[in-house]
Amino acid sequence: MSRDNSRKTDQLESLTQQLRKYGMRSVLFQQNMALKLGVFPTDLKTADILNETGPITAGELARITGLSTGAVTALIDRLEKAGIVKREKDPKDGRRVVIAPVSKRHQEILEHYQTLAQATKKMCVNYDEKEMDLILTFIHNITTIMEDELEKLTIERDSSL
Amino acid sequence: MSRDNSRKTDQLESLTQQLRKYGMRSVLFQQNMALKLGVFPTDLKTADILNETGPITAGELARITGLSTGAVTALIDRLEKAGIVKREKDPKDGRRVVIAPVSKRHQEILEHYQTLAQATKKMCVNYDEKEMDLILTFIHNITTIMEDELEKLTIERDSSL
Repeated sequence: MSRDNSRKTDQLESLTQQLRKYGMRSVLFQQNMALKLGVFPTDLKTADILNETGPITAGELARITGLSTGAVTALIDRLEKAGIVKREKDPKDGRRVVIAPVSKRHQEILEHYQTLAQATKKMCVNYDEKEMDLILTFIHNITTIMEDELEKLTIERDSSL
Repeated sequence: MSRDNSRKTDQLESLTQQLRKYGMRSVLFQQNMALKLGVFPTDLKTADILNETGPITAGELARITGLSTGAVTALIDRLEKAGIVKREKDPKDGRRVVIAPVSKRHQEILEHYQTLAQATKKMCVNYDEKEMDLILTFIHNITTIMEDELEKLTIERDSSL
């Protein structure tokens, strides 16, 4: 029993270390990808968020990124100038302005991510459906945790301003 | 058979999307953490690399981060000024200078990561040892893939200079 507990503790320790290592590699990958595409790392990340959410308002973008409203306005200006996003009227509510990703630029960025996706898929051939489900649920769970912690960090920072 | 294949394809698609989503959250988390600590995101990331590798030379750091030698020199200057790293003689070879993380600062950064690690560990209680091994191996594999792709990106960029 005590040996089982210590084995589990070791596994948990390895897991958090490994996740941190993976997270750091993601940060580096994103940064190098941005350099390659000739944009700022922040620009690329925001384009990626918009591809996930679809057109959203500047306020919503500020909430997701944890950036201040002022910082987001400057960011959108830069992104629009670089041809990555455009400001447009919300088709559902003409009084609202939403930030939409520019699809041509999106396609270019997606292509750069394809070798990464292909290598991942090749590696996954070794897992059966049940194992894949387990892994998918796990990645989904840690993404939710990361989102919660991100929100906490943002709230703390806002209240200390 | 054909239905099984399509199920597997769906799983692979969900997985690459989910991983990308997680990676992006890592980038945002790192950025917000850096803001909270009062350093640049790059500074924090480099400190994290040094905590993984231990003291390394500027050349080795350039190779890992994918930054040019010039950019790395500027980065180390900034990190040293911020008290995050120090330049010191390699204990194993007095002619070499290595960049070492400053442990007090390291401790501070680690504390900020603890709530994230705790939430992850709490979630993992639901997995048994065999499942944990499967997940650990998977995360290790995708980290290796990310490292390989990162290296490719860096090589491409260097050769296009």
